[in-house]
Amino acid sequence: MNNMKDIREILEKVKNGDMEAEEAEKYFKAAPFMDLGYAKLDHHRKVRTGFPEVVFCEGKPDEHIVEIFKKLCDEDGRALGTRATNHQYELIKKEIPGAKYDSVSRIIKIEQDEKNEKIGNIVVCCAGTADIPVAEEAFAVAEYFGNNVRKIYDIGISGLHRLLSYVEELQSANCIIAVAGMEGALPSVLGGLVSVPVIAVPTSVGYGASFHGVSALLTMINSCANGISVVNIDNGFGAGYIASQINRLAERK
Amino acid sequence: MNNMKDIREILEKVKNGDMEAEEAEKYFKAAPFMDLGYAKLDHHRKVRTGFPEVVFCEGKPDEHIVEIFKKLCDEDGRALGTRATNHQYELIKKEIPGAKYDSVSRIIKIEQDEKNEKIGNIVVCCAGTADIPVAEEAFAVAEYFGNNVRKIYDIGISGLHRLLSYVEELQSANCIIAVAGMEGALPSVLGGLVSVPVIAVPTSVGYGASFHGVSALLTMINSCANGISVVNIDNGFGAGYIASQINRLAERK
Amino acid sequence: MNNMKDIREILEKVKNGDMEAEEAEKYFKAAPFMDLGYAKLDHHRKVRTGFPEVVFCEGKPDEHIVEIFKKLCDEDGRALGTRATNHQYELIKKEIPGAKYDSVSRIIKIEQDEKNEKIGNIVVCCAGTADIPVAEEAFAVAEYFGNNVRKIYDIGISGLHRLLSYVEELQSANCIIAVAGMEGALPSVLGGLVSVPVIAVPTSVGYGASFHGVSALLTMINSCANGISVVNIDNGFGAGYIASQINRLAERK
Amino acid sequence: MNNMKDIREILEKVKNGDMEAEEAEKYFKAAPFMDLGYAKLDHHRKVRTGFPEVVFCEGKPDEHIVEIFKKLCDEDGRALGTRATNHQYELIKKEIPGAKYDSVSRIIKIEQDEKNEKIGNIVVCCAGTADIPVAEEAFAVAEYFGNNVRKIYDIGISGLHRLLSYVEELQSANCIIAVAGMEGALPSVLGGLVSVPVIAVPTSVGYGASFHGVSALLTMINSCANGISVVNIDNGFGAGYIASQINRLAERK
Amino acid sequence: MNNMKDIREILEKVKNGDMEAEEAEKYFKAAPFMDLGYAKLDHHRKVRTGFPEVVFCEGKPDEHIVEIFKKLCDEDGRALGTRATNHQYELIKKEIPGAKYDSVSRIIKIEQDEKNEKIGNIVVCCAGTADIPVAEEAFAVAEYFGNNVRKIYDIGISGLHRLLSYVEELQSANCIIAVAGMEGALPSVLGGLVSVPVIAVPTSVGYGASFHGVSALLTMINSCANGISVVNIDNGFGAGYIASQINRLAERK
Amino acid sequence: MNNMKDIREILEKVKNGDMEAEEAEKYFKAAPFMDLGYAKLDHHRKVRTGFPEVVFCEGKPDEHIVEIFKKLCDEDGRALGTRATNHQYELIKKEIPGAKYDSVSRIIKIEQDEKNEKIGNIVVCCAGTADIPVAEEAFAVAEYFGNNVRKIYDIGISGLHRLLSYVEELQSANCIIAVAGMEGALPSVLGGLVSVPVIAVPTSVGYGASFHGVSALLTMINSCANGISVVNIDNGFGAGYIASQINRLAERK
Amino acid sequence: MNNMKDIREILEKVKNGDMEAEEAEKYFKAAPFMDLGYAKLDHHRKVRTGFPEVVFCEGKPDEHIVEIFKKLCDEDGRALGTRATNHQYELIKKEIPGAKYDSVSRIIKIEQDEKNEKIGNIVVCCAGTADIPVAEEAFAVAEYFGNNVRKIYDIGISGLHRLLSYVEELQSANCIIAVAGMEGALPSVLGGLVSVPVIAVPTSVGYGASFHGVSALLTMINSCANGISVVNIDNGFGAGYIASQINRLAERK
Amino acid sequence: MNNMKDIREILEKVKNGDMEAEEAEKYFKAAPFMDLGYAKLDHHRKVRTGFPEVVFCEGKPDEHIVEIFKKLCDEDGRALGTRATNHQYELIKKEIPGAKYDSVSRIIKIEQDEKNEKIGNIVVCCAGTADIPVAEEAFAVAEYFGNNVRKIYDIGISGLHRLLSYVEELQSANCIIAVAGMEGALPSVLGGLVSVPVIAVPTSVGYGASFHGVSALLTMINSCANGISVVNIDNGFGAGYIASQINRLAERK
Repeated sequence: MNNMKDIREILEKVKNGDMEAEEAEKYFKAAPFMDLGYAKLDHHRKVRTGFPEVVFCEGKPDEHIVEIFKKLCDEDGRALGTRATNHQYELIKKEIPGAKYDSVSRIIKIEQDEKNEKIGNIVVCCAGTADIPVAEEAFAVAEYFGNNVRKIYDIGISGLHRLLSYVEELQSANCIIAVAGMEGALPSVLGGLVSVPVIAVPTSVGYGASFHGVSALLTMINSCANGISVVNIDNGFGAGYIASQINRLAERK
Repeated sequence: MNNMKDIREILEKVKNGDMEAEEAEKYFKAAPFMDLGYAKLDHHRKVRTGFPEVVFCEGKPDEHIVEIFKKLCDEDGRALGTRATNHQYELIKKEIPGAKYDSVSRIIKIEQDEKNEKIGNIVVCCAGTADIPVAEEAFAVAEYFGNNVRKIYDIGISGLHRLLSYVEELQSANCIIAVAGMEGALPSVLGGLVSVPVIAVPTSVGYGASFHGVSALLTMINSCANGISVVNIDNGFGAGYIASQINRLAERK
Repeated sequence: MNNMKDIREILEKVKNGDMEAEEAEKYFKAAPFMDLGYAKLDHHRKVRTGFPEVVFCEGKPDEHIVEIFKKLCDEDGRALGTRATNHQYELIKKEIPGAKYDSVSRIIKIEQDEKNEKIGNIVVCCAGTADIPVAEEAFAVAEYFGNNVRKIYDIGISGLHRLLSYVEELQSANCIIAVAGMEGALPSVLGGLVSVPVIAVPTSVGYGASFHGVSALLTMINSCANGISVVNIDNGFGAGYIASQINRLAERK
Repeated sequence: MNNMKDIREILEKVKNGDMEAEEAEKYFKAAPFMDLGYAKLDHHRKVRTGFPEVVFCEGKPDEHIVEIFKKLCDEDGRALGTRATNHQYELIKKEIPGAKYDSVSRIIKIEQDEKNEKIGNIVVCCAGTADIPVAEEAFAVAEYFGNNVRKIYDIGISGLHRLLSYVEELQSANCIIAVAGMEGALPSVLGGLVSVPVIAVPTSVGYGASFHGVSALLTMINSCANGISVVNIDNGFGAGYIASQINRLAERK
Repeated sequence: MNNMKDIREILEKVKNGDMEAEEAEKYFKAAPFMDLGYAKLDHHRKVRTGFPEVVFCEGKPDEHIVEIFKKLCDEDGRALGTRATNHQYELIKKEIPGAKYDSVSRIIKIEQDEKNEKIGNIVVCCAGTADIPVAEEAFAVAEYFGNNVRKIYDIGISGLHRLLSYVEELQSANCIIAVAGMEGALPSVLGGLVSVPVIAVPTSVGYGASFHGVSALLTMINSCANGISVVNIDNGFGAGYIASQINRLAERK
Repeated sequence: MNNMKDIREILEKVKNGDMEAEEAEKYFKAAPFMDLGYAKLDHHRKVRTGFPEVVFCEGKPDEHIVEIFKKLCDEDGRALGTRATNHQYELIKKEIPGAKYDSVSRIIKIEQDEKNEKIGNIVVCCAGTADIPVAEEAFAVAEYFGNNVRKIYDIGISGLHRLLSYVEELQSANCIIAVAGMEGALPSVLGGLVSVPVIAVPTSVGYGASFHGVSALLTMINSCANGISVVNIDNGFGAGYIASQINRLAERK
Repeated sequence: MNNMKDIREILEKVKNGDMEAEEAEKYFKAAPFMDLGYAKLDHHRKVRTGFPEVVFCEGKPDEHIVEIFKKLCDEDGRALGTRATNHQYELIKKEIPGAKYDSVSRIIKIEQDEKNEKIGNIVVCCAGTADIPVAEEAFAVAEYFGNNVRKIYDIGISGLHRLLSYVEELQSANCIIAVAGMEGALPSVLGGLVSVPVIAVPTSVGYGASFHGVSALLTMINSCANGISVVNIDNGFGAGYIASQINRLAERK
Repeated sequence: MNNMKDIREILEKVKNGDMEAEEAEKYFKAAPFMDLGYAKLDHHRKVRTGFPEVVFCEGKPDEHIVEIFKKLCDEDGRALGTRATNHQYELIKKEIPGAKYDSVSRIIKIEQDEKNEKIGNIVVCCAGTADIPVAEEAFAVAEYFGNNVRKIYDIGISGLHRLLSYVEELQSANCIIAVAGMEGALPSVLGGLVSVPVIAVPTSVGYGASFHGVSALLTMINSCANGISVVNIDNGFGAGYIASQINRLAERK
């Protein structure tokens, strides 16, 4: 009894006298919200998110990683994996020849037809060239989820002119992903220039008192600009996901 | 020379010979992008955000607080102040009799006509009753910005049934603000139940190793659920602002 | 539809033709696990914990605190509140004359008949006299929950002989609550002397690098002794609760 | 003079005149509580814990590790080692052919007869697949100590339906071990669903602001649910030990 | 024996038999460089710094504070005290009627003739109005030390246009003091706009994860801009001192 | 049975047939090391430390503090209390008229005859005047314990000449207590100048990133000089105690 | 329209009727501060800093690093890279045979004529030999920027005599760079001896509670000496840059 | 003129007329306090410490390490190096065949005659077998400095009987070095048992929330026992040094 159809079926049986009320009660009693909830939520989840599942590859054992990708491809005809190693890619490629790997974003992608229509307008920007891997992860995820995504990289605030020359493009987005390490001040400056949500992604770029991204995270959490919310250090995937949610909301008819 | 009209005026004067090119150049030279930029951005800001300014009252001296509220009321016919003390309210009330104060959210509000049309659907929920002041700040800000906002309070995850009984209402929102102190796990559970962005607000509620909200903040930043982004501890205003941005995007035609 | 009786009723109506399957489906669809779950869990909770609710008084507004105590007394004929102020006590006493307050443990207690039978054997010990308030909170909670509880205070490890003179009493307990601030090493020594679980409670007692109990917490979490688990700083209530769970398990027939 | 038998013997000798009081005094004077205590405690320890010793293999030099296992096997006919490397296993296997190694839990086990009777009911659950190694360590230890242990893995709170489908099994346990990394909120949700102690084990699973398990630890320490106590990060052994203590208490006649 | 003359004198005495070698040896053995060093350094200090002493008033007992100010006035005809309370001011004023107190910067100043010539060009800027007290302390100290100082306040980076409208003034300074709390990103932006040293002063302004200025300090220490060095949180005095050193170097002939 | 005499007595009784071996065994079985150990250790402690007990007054309730002082005075004819308030002093003075209070060190002292002979040579030095209260606590404790103690205050390393002028006195001590807040570098410099142990006491003097003494503590723990060991922040008593131990060792015949 | 000349040209065209005001307005409207700002700032930057760009080599991919050095050499005839590996040097050397590498400071340098005139006087000192790599980075940068730089190494404060023997040389500098790990107290001592700014550089040298340089950083930030400002841990480049700014200001005519 | 003998010689020459006062003055004039100071301190140091220099080998380059050992051997006929690698030992052994290496303590020792007389009584104890390397470093250093040192290892407090069986030996020492990782509570227990100073050495032994020794360090700093002072994590050398100072003081005639 794990979806609406099952509920109806049981109720019909009761109605038709094919099942006793006592018998029917057992289904509901034994698993009132659990299995029912399970199925319902499960179904709901797929339907509502509309986003295909993404595989977090880091630390996954060799035997699992291939199996997961094959299963996803069988179901959806496509798959995306983040934080993948080249070794994992080699394994997957043997089984799924169309798999592609980008060593910068560390993403494995299998996509039948990359030319599917994209919606809306997300901008991914980053402060320095060292932040690009995280920005690329956010970019790849948001694009995989069907969004138009534009990259504006290397616009750190210590050279303000670079950032200012993109104001109009930044202002035209539905949502901005701002990736920065070191002092992580890029989102604050962006927050003062645009009217849409800025998803701030601290990166572990830096040394000394950057504490592997903690300083950047604190900067972003303490931002005096409005519209800034923050995800975990190096969490490009998370930012890409949230931006996709916002862009979809903005583009729905 | 602080807006487009000024630019045009100067150019017309130059064209008509009412101003020498040299004279005109000074305006641009002295403040090429600065004053120009100032005005432009300033104007842009107002136009694009569409959100009236909100006053952070904490620590503002008595003489300033009254003046700021009067100026805002003169311009917009309304004003909102967060983190206000009762003392500040008494001062403002003398000058602006229509001012109202809510001691829970610590918000001062002056609003000509509170019945103006609201849009969309934001849900503000919180884990425990001690989190309500922060939730109310988020609520008041989002409502002041013209959004339909619904409160679902005291649905902490240690009593899961409370939370589960609101699943449908939660799933119908454009954006959810989740306020929680102590272990701050509410956003993670919500993130698994809904398809829209969850703005997580850690609160300083707790004791011992809660570190005035740091533990809750870390929980939220590390969330294994998708769609969670985080603002500063007790930053109800910030969450209300971002939720308003997202709700507006979702409701635009 | 929030309990088993409701489920049966609806099914009977469907069976009898008093309700259409479609109509019945709505109940299950609208609230499949939620309300159902709510009731079931709610009922379960009360039945299984067997522990009366305890009020965390800290920060509760005056108007709420009295109402909560009155409601609890009406239902159970008794009530317990932790971290209460004398002011809160005065308010409650006006409404419930039998209320008692202990200024050390900061506990408000209302109990019709304190002579009810106690089970098992819990020992609450603490390192120094300054830890007594937290130990007393644990003691009061565990006793309120119907356990035999014995206090062994001021047996800090810098004077080992004090602790060693209680070895037999310690070894006879079903569970030990060990409360300590400063370097918090008491639980480690106890863990090496007894065979039952030791619930370690760090306290905020200390100064300088004790960091309001963080050092004690770390000591306990890193204990080289077996059988030590830890609760939050100053969380006497939590330790009393867990010890009650363990003692009840040990004493069940 | 290291046990009760020795004490009696000496006293009998004194009584019978076979030993002078002065001579006897020497035994007590030379080692009043120390050697006496040593033996007594030592003996007590073995008798009372009833748990065979477990070897923490990490960092033990090659020459020691084999010797320790051989000694334990000679005495008890069995041995268990945690945090062992495959290299250590290879060394031990040469000497003790029956040794087994599990590379996930990193446990070396030598057991004559694994079919010995188990008691009670412990549930080990974990939030994600990456937490399984720590959960498996807890599982193996608790099982080795003679408990019935059941695994419920991958029931993280961001997919609540998974967890909810196991409520009944969770509620039937004497004690639950809840293993979780990242935001570590699983124990809080479990604490609200069951009436028995939940031993929370933070894991070092996560990245960025998870701080190698510190965030999960803080979440657990700050849990708003009752009945949660916490052990060190990745300390599966410790949780298995405490759960065994509780389960034994619950099952004693 | 604190200068060369003393050395010669002693040697002459030894030569002339007026002092035994043993006696002479004691001088060299006991205090050869010490007393010499003492005097030498002491003198050097006064001569070289050229900056009058400034009193850190915080925590100084009433009886001391007045005495210190009187002594400084007697010697130099003027005095400056930082972090003074109004109470301290009242005490001083009784003895030194010309004393002035500024409650924002918490500075007590006694100056015969404030019209003395100032040199060079220091700019003190701050991000928000709440940072003004610290900025004012830096301003007052630098001005007291004889520098031309200009204030540019409330130019936080979330409203970039404000900052940009002052670029020319900022670029004309010999040294910039940048005071900021919350995320503390102002110095980074300034560092990219000017060619002179920027002394960054984090303030304790903020809440939640600002950690009383630690976040701002970390932002500044991790700055990706060149030319930024940092002083302690709220250390306006320190920044004023260093800026004075730099300005003096820049203006020396 | 708490000392050697008791052991002999029991053995004699057994020998003489006045006590059965079984009866005697009980004493040893029931309390083999505990009570025996207790007494032995207790006695040992008093004999060996030779230091009278010192009362930590902070947080002690009014009724306890007077009683403790009276008991100590009755036994020893003198008493010392640290971290006492003036209020506590007033209470004690009523009962013990000879009590004296020093508001800087916050020490209450009752001493029949302060002229008792002192031994050895301890130097207590501190970096700044704000460190004096902690230095005075160390001084008072060490003097109370019968040591010759000399104070050298306000010799912070930023004015090296002050420190260097005391080199000889510093080098003549058996042990040096070095008290410093802020950056806490005084012990490192001293460690390079003397050959005896330097007990480093960080103080909570400072602001901003001094973290109430943590920075000073870290400086001292990381000292590159030899012979430096560290006690807790503001722990003047602890330093005085250790210095007394060392001085006594140095002066024993 | 990216400089003043362009502004004038457009205005002249408007004046002469060669361009319509509307047309001219577009230039200002479309790119008021952005492109204009971009170019202006860009130009300004080069002109005003006077310092050639320095490459941060760490983490730069092989293909980029060579290209960057070639481009810099083509433009300026010279280039400097910090934190370079020997591998990176090998790659660069193939293309630019004149490149030199210093494995201690990890600097790659290409300089046509190293004999160019140097100005002023910067002193780089460090506490221990392990700090030399960071000191050498500061030295190399400051020298590359055209300053006279002198090294005084291994003058840690635990052997004060070493430091004191260089007082005169230290006092003659325009600016001092003080590099220290472990307890990092060198800058405080220097600050008390000289009248010029001391740029403090904490290093990651140390172990245990040095926390990879955090303790040294805290020591320096809390310095009780005047004139100390701090850069990030191991940031020799940053210190060299700031010292160059100060030295240039001091030497300008 | 770098020692006392030189000073006396010159003075004698002056007295005897073998040297002119002017000539003699040059020696003193050329190096007023610096070089003089240098030499004086240097000489003093050697005279007073009486401890031969010890080499911290970690990170020392190959070419330096051999040279340093050779120089020390030439001067003193012996040398000791801590934290040495086997590789460093191999290099040294080629040049100094008598060198010995202990891979546990990581100490290289060259000693002509190890049978030189030892004084006093130092006890080095440690909590677990994993702490032995640090304990051995302390042991080797203290023994090299001419002290009788006794080892009591593996007496962690979770098995109190082990520790208690050594009470008399512990009480007979002049100074105790207590080495412990994990929760680091050994020194507290020892402090309550002995009357001499306990030098506490936290080790980096542990995992999870042990933070590489920080938890142990905090435990020790917060010790409620008297007589405990603390050195850096894993700083066996430092503890050996201080214990040697104390033991020497205790044994001096």
